[in-house]
Amino acid sequence: MAVQQRSTVRDGRGNKLETYVLTHFKPVWTIIQLIPPVRKRVNKILINRVIYKIPTRPYPLSTMAAYTSWDSLTDRTFTGRHLPPATEQANELPAIDAVIQLFERQSKTVRVSPKSTLLFSHFAQWFTDGFLRTDRENYLKNTSNHEIDLCQVYGLTRAHTHLLRTHRRGMLKSQVVHGEEYPCYYYGPDGTASTEFAGLPIVVPPDVDPAKKATLFAMGVERANVQTGYVMMNTLFLREHNRICGELAHAHPDWDDERLFQTARNIAMVLLIKIVVNEYINHIAPYHFKFRFDATSFVKERWYRQNWMSLEFSLVYRWHGLVPDRFRLGGQDFPAEETMFNNAIVTERGLGGLFEDASAQPAGEIGLFNTPHFLLDTERASIELSRLTHLRSYNEYRRLCNYPRVTAFDQITGNRDVQIALEQTYGHVDNIEFYVGLMAEDLRPGSAVAPLIGRLVGIDAFSQALTNPLLSEHVFNERTFSSTGLKIIKRTTSLSDILHRNLPDSKRKYRVSMTRSDSA
Amino acid sequence: MAVQQRSTVRDGRGNKLETYVLTHFKPVWTIIQLIPPVRKRVNKILINRVIYKIPTRPYPLSTMAAYTSWDSLTDRTFTGRHLPPATEQANELPAIDAVIQLFERQSKTVRVSPKSTLLFSHFAQWFTDGFLRTDRENYLKNTSNHEIDLCQVYGLTRAHTHLLRTHRRGMLKSQVVHGEEYPCYYYGPDGTASTEFAGLPIVVPPDVDPAKKATLFAMGVERANVQTGYVMMNTLFLREHNRICGELAHAHPDWDDERLFQTARNIAMVLLIKIVVNEYINHIAPYHFKFRFDATSFVKERWYRQNWMSLEFSLVYRWHGLVPDRFRLGGQDFPAEETMFNNAIVTERGLGGLFEDASAQPAGEIGLFNTPHFLLDTERASIELSRLTHLRSYNEYRRLCNYPRVTAFDQITGNRDVQIALEQTYGHVDNIEFYVGLMAEDLRPGSAVAPLIGRLVGIDAFSQALTNPLLSEHVFNERTFSSTGLKIIKRTTSLSDILHRNLPDSKRKYRVSMTRSDSA
Repeated sequence: MAVQQRSTVRDGRGNKLETYVLTHFKPVWTIIQLIPPVRKRVNKILINRVIYKIPTRPYPLSTMAAYTSWDSLTDRTFTGRHLPPATEQANELPAIDAVIQLFERQSKTVRVSPKSTLLFSHFAQWFTDGFLRTDRENYLKNTSNHEIDLCQVYGLTRAHTHLLRTHRRGMLKSQVVHGEEYPCYYYGPDGTASTEFAGLPIVVPPDVDPAKKATLFAMGVERANVQTGYVMMNTLFLREHNRICGELAHAHPDWDDERLFQTARNIAMVLLIKIVVNEYINHIAPYHFKFRFDATSFVKERWYRQNWMSLEFSLVYRWHGLVPDRFRLGGQDFPAEETMFNNAIVTERGLGGLFEDASAQPAGEIGLFNTPHFLLDTERASIELSRLTHLRSYNEYRRLCNYPRVTAFDQITGNRDVQIALEQTYGHVDNIEFYVGLMAEDLRPGSAVAPLIGRLVGIDAFSQALTNPLLSEHVFNERTFSSTGLKIIKRTTSLSDILHRNLPDSKRKYRVSMTRSDSA
Repeated sequence: MAVQQRSTVRDGRGNKLETYVLTHFKPVWTIIQLIPPVRKRVNKILINRVIYKIPTRPYPLSTMAAYTSWDSLTDRTFTGRHLPPATEQANELPAIDAVIQLFERQSKTVRVSPKSTLLFSHFAQWFTDGFLRTDRENYLKNTSNHEIDLCQVYGLTRAHTHLLRTHRRGMLKSQVVHGEEYPCYYYGPDGTASTEFAGLPIVVPPDVDPAKKATLFAMGVERANVQTGYVMMNTLFLREHNRICGELAHAHPDWDDERLFQTARNIAMVLLIKIVVNEYINHIAPYHFKFRFDATSFVKERWYRQNWMSLEFSLVYRWHGLVPDRFRLGGQDFPAEETMFNNAIVTERGLGGLFEDASAQPAGEIGLFNTPHFLLDTERASIELSRLTHLRSYNEYRRLCNYPRVTAFDQITGNRDVQIALEQTYGHVDNIEFYVGLMAEDLRPGSAVAPLIGRLVGIDAFSQALTNPLLSEHVFNERTFSSTGLKIIKRTTSLSDILHRNLPDSKRKYRVSMTRSDSA
């Protein structure tokens, strides 16, 4: 495609300055990060700057109604929203089929991300499936617990958790395959769901053949078997949970199964949040300053409010462009479809190898014209959701987020083909739908995502992660985690840390990175 | 009883000073309250001082377990707690029967409050039943929505609300009796529950005779018919809801039933919160400075966290001493039992008269040896709850609340008989149970309650009322309430305001006051 320089005249002076400062003066940022009290203070200031870009929770509105009611303020089965629905009927919106064409991957091979590996893609999909959970029966509703609660591993309800536990020494049910620990198989040898997991809602598409079905695991949420990347993340946290139980049981021989389980879960959840801040968000952001997990510095912020996933956040996170057409695993190429609902690949490769493979292959680039064919129906669902909820336009969301409205297509992207396609589809920049505009923007230099995505992800990720009750003022302490737990939290800073303490061969080192080894 | 001066040596120097300042220098406080910006600032400082006396939410513990888990941090069907359970088994606790004797009203007539009228008693009972809702099937759990949501009027669930609505013009179902509006009768003429209210959980004791049963109303919660005071408060807010609907329908002829209902409810809930702060809390407190409803000044406070009713709060509020043995209604004396589950009294007297009667009769005094005979079983339940939850002692709660532990019985009360009874029952002040200690303390001069009660009520009342989502930064505005609604909120400062606009004879003025006309 013909790529030129994007016009930055509508980026906003304050935004440009902020980005300039954060992506230059590397020596200054280095020094700042060498002085812990300064680093902590700057970390707090920058995280607050990220979050305060838009009004904070409670949201006045949810998908329940176009006005505020006691029901809408309290019923989190409806999804929050940052902007009220558009009032004028959007007669001038293009046909959905025309919009879907803007997403379809054009070339035979994926357009790759200059920065991200597949590990980033896997992590993003798995992580967000824990809280961005549109109810497939009713798009206005959700099945989310609205917290980073590792429901992917533990289940969405206490009843599901119950089925996944051994009820001995705090451990989750697991099995050993090829010398490594994995979740248990969900189906028995006869092809029907194992009675011990009756009630656990594991979803399998009807066309999955019996041999693959036999490899599926009993895990916390419906689609946990969807892809090798999801399964490998779940396996990692299952192993870590059981490993933590061992440490806790050793330190606290008097604790019963329940206390071991609950405390291990407390610790595992915080490990995830820490990795989200220290590894995942820093991969997304292009800044010299690296954000740091900080549990208790934000108690006086007015963004410190009960979590409530928003409609816009759920759209912002539909990064289908990340998914390549083929996955390279153990030196062999698998078509993407082959890696879905197929855990034999996982158990044959082993967890270390899976992480190394995911860290070696580039992810696709997030953006238009890069959605693999098998995810186009999901793009359709996204557009349908936008229209069902009368979502306001891309330009109105720019304004919400402190970006000036764009006035020409070349302010969104430098890619001439994308400009033309947008113009043909929407006629005027003001007509561009939120979801399409998000995905049409060029990536920020050095960032894994485009500017508006980056802003919205930052706002929601920080404000939802750091308000987790486990991080609150009187909870984030030794009483909640035990001194063993606090030590585990302290000494863990990356996925690599967790992986390497959960492998059968403790000597072998694997490369574990969301960032491409050849990125700038 | 022999009453002497209580020893104040263990009141705490800071506490004494604070009380002294707040109950002296009247001219200074008067001037402060005449200058709105100063008043607002002082109001904020004083409310914060009240709340920050103890650690703020989220509570690390609930009644679920003695340690913190993800379940305990998220499942609000268990009740929060301020202090962890006592670790040592309380073998030395006296027999429950001995403790109950400390509560039993001694004389033939009630010991009256020097400050409060029955209106205070009625309001307190009715108001707290909206959120302090111990599950009678399992004392460790609750049936609370944890908010001041007027569930007494609207029901605890949307399904119950549905049954109580006319679904026309936003109105609640009502009927006219003797020319005044009341809730509908729950039972049909044949003595069985009316089918239109099927599913509404109205509880009636088995011994209520059919004539009384026929007078019971269909209202939001199980025990809403319990006493004339409860019924009169519910009737007032039902009338106000329907009246607001009329105002809204006039201002917004295009609004449908749903929007009228929801907006009227938004307004009615805020009216209640405003009255709680401006009238009810100021009645309780003995200060020259009068607290004021202020919706949005507290957004940066670290106490601004999701509500969660606590075990201790539910005990603090069991003010059975308030209830007299006889109620004077329309110049006639009724034994207390006669006023229970008996709404004929309500409809015959009329709402204006009921408020005037309740404002004319003194309430009982909150304290030991003043619980009417028919509430002694409730006292037993309180002690059982304390023991079931291994509640820490009175002295430990004093320490939590920044009061020095008492070292002698005469530091709790100046009443020699009470001192002796406490000593005979508990032996040592350190053994006194929380609930008993609370009720044993002498009232603060000029206050409706004793010091530790006052402190705990202030903490919980302010921090739970002012964090209601309707008062939040982006919700407390014209979009949520309409300009009509904001005007209603602004011009309402007392129960008297609400009453007088909801009476058939708009000229007649009734005295409406929680404070005795003859109090100092």
